[in-house]
Amino acid sequence: MRDIVIIGHKAKTDGDFSLNDLPGSAGRMDILCRCVSSALFLSFGMRRDVNVHLLLLGEPDPGKIIRFEGLHLRYLNPDERSSGSLIQKALKKDATEQDIRSTPGIWIRRGDLSFLLSKFEGRTLFYLREDGEDIRAIANEIRDPVFFLGDHVGVTEEEEEQLLKAGAKIISVGPLSLHSNHCITLVHNELDRAEAQRGESPGEIERWIEN
Amino acid sequence: MRDIVIIGHKAKTDGDFSLNDLPGSAGRMDILCRCVSSALFLSFGMRRDVNVHLLLLGEPDPGKIIRFEGLHLRYLNPDERSSGSLIQKALKKDATEQDIRSTPGIWIRRGDLSFLLSKFEGRTLFYLREDGEDIRAIANEIRDPVFFLGDHVGVTEEEEEQLLKAGAKIISVGPLSLHSNHCITLVHNELDRAEAQRGESPGEIERWIEN
Ligand SMILES: C[S@@+](CC[C@H](N)C(=O)[O-])C[C@H]1O[C@@H](n2cnc3c(N)ncnc32)[C@H](O)[C@@H]1O
Ligand SMILES: C[S@@+](CC[C@H](N)C(=O)[O-])C[C@H]1O[C@@H](n2cnc3c(N)ncnc32)[C@H](O)[C@@H]1O
Repeated sequence: MRDIVIIGHKAKTDGDFSLNDLPGSAGRMDILCRCVSSALFLSFGMRRDVNVHLLLLGEPDPGKIIRFEGLHLRYLNPDERSSGSLIQKALKKDATEQDIRSTPGIWIRRGDLSFLLSKFEGRTLFYLREDGEDIRAIANEIRDPVFFLGDHVGVTEEEEEQLLKAGAKIISVGPLSLHSNHCITLVHNELDRAEAQRGESPGEIERWIEN
Repeated sequence: MRDIVIIGHKAKTDGDFSLNDLPGSAGRMDILCRCVSSALFLSFGMRRDVNVHLLLLGEPDPGKIIRFEGLHLRYLNPDERSSGSLIQKALKKDATEQDIRSTPGIWIRRGDLSFLLSKFEGRTLFYLREDGEDIRAIANEIRDPVFFLGDHVGVTEEEEEQLLKAGAKIISVGPLSLHSNHCITLVHNELDRAEAQRGESPGEIERWIEN
């Protein structure tokens, strides 16, 4: 399983935004939409072994988490508007301290970074930062990882402190500072290559589901 | 310089489509929009050493080429709707056998794959295909490349023949079949890493422009 967390500091926390203006009215929701797509899509289907967790910290009701489960997802297309509309639908639910299902494979709840870190206790945590250790040097040893990425403003000092305290290792995907969705594509590629080298088939679950 | 060509077999060739429905009414223009974004954006600005060529082969007037020049581009944001609207603007120009400037850094003309191949004569051509040679094995030797990618239906047999006849080398970016925009991110990463290893700075031009 690969879990990917993206922190959206400005991302709106109610469904009151226009799908025609995801960058503006929705608080750079376009970034999170592209992350969903990069995290979940293969050429011919979904990465069934991936979960995406969007941590939404914008107004008017900061501290919501939307979870996309690759294994159960339906109705998602790769374009930004498609994930944007599923996010909007989830935000129209009354979020509580319990998971509420919005559409197949999409769940919403209240929560913050601490909640996610306690949820992932025992997993191997990676915090993506430009000056981290090169993921390529360690990709072969990575099993069952959780990756944390920032949005256009990165990760705050306080968040970084929490991540490091929880034992997250800082890794880099390359020499330039990139958009979060591009980083996700690069992380997947390193793990795909490592799995292929070990003779594991990342598509296995997918085929199993569809047969 | 890195040039990237994406072949859009269904992509509309007039501006008569809705930005609210880039996948449907615009003939999977969403794919090309994501390719533009992956090809051109860094975290804090544009890749000034990249040109993107969208070969549009859909109705009603197949055979148009829209070129995005990283060096001169303005008004482009990373979201799909932003590139979609600049593509639409270009398609509203009367395209001829000559380049016509639409907005800063964006040009449109009539043309097909043969035209592009003759334009790139003398350059090193790469055709991205799942079963090609691993780009990682050769990234260090790549200089001044042109990359060709297909859309959701890939590359036709006829196009493939033309590419190979023009001397294109078949390369792969990883063990799974991915979306075209993800492939572009991976290609850039390999070249960025190779340049960084050689001590070249891919951001140089960018900084030089902005100072
Ligand atoms: C657009 S970047 C953030 C820009 C910048 N870090 C800042 O503080 O404003 C979004 C996220 O992508 C990740 N990222 C970008 N480039 C990276 C790289 N080369 N290696 C690892 N992570 C990277 C980081 O998690 C970052 O928070
Ligand atoms: C969505 S894929 C096309 C799917 C499939 N090849 C087909 O024929 O329908 C879009 C394009 O991305 C490129 N591509 C996808 N996965 C790739 C890989 N692992 N290595 C190299 N290129 C790849 C190819 O250029 C392909 O035409």
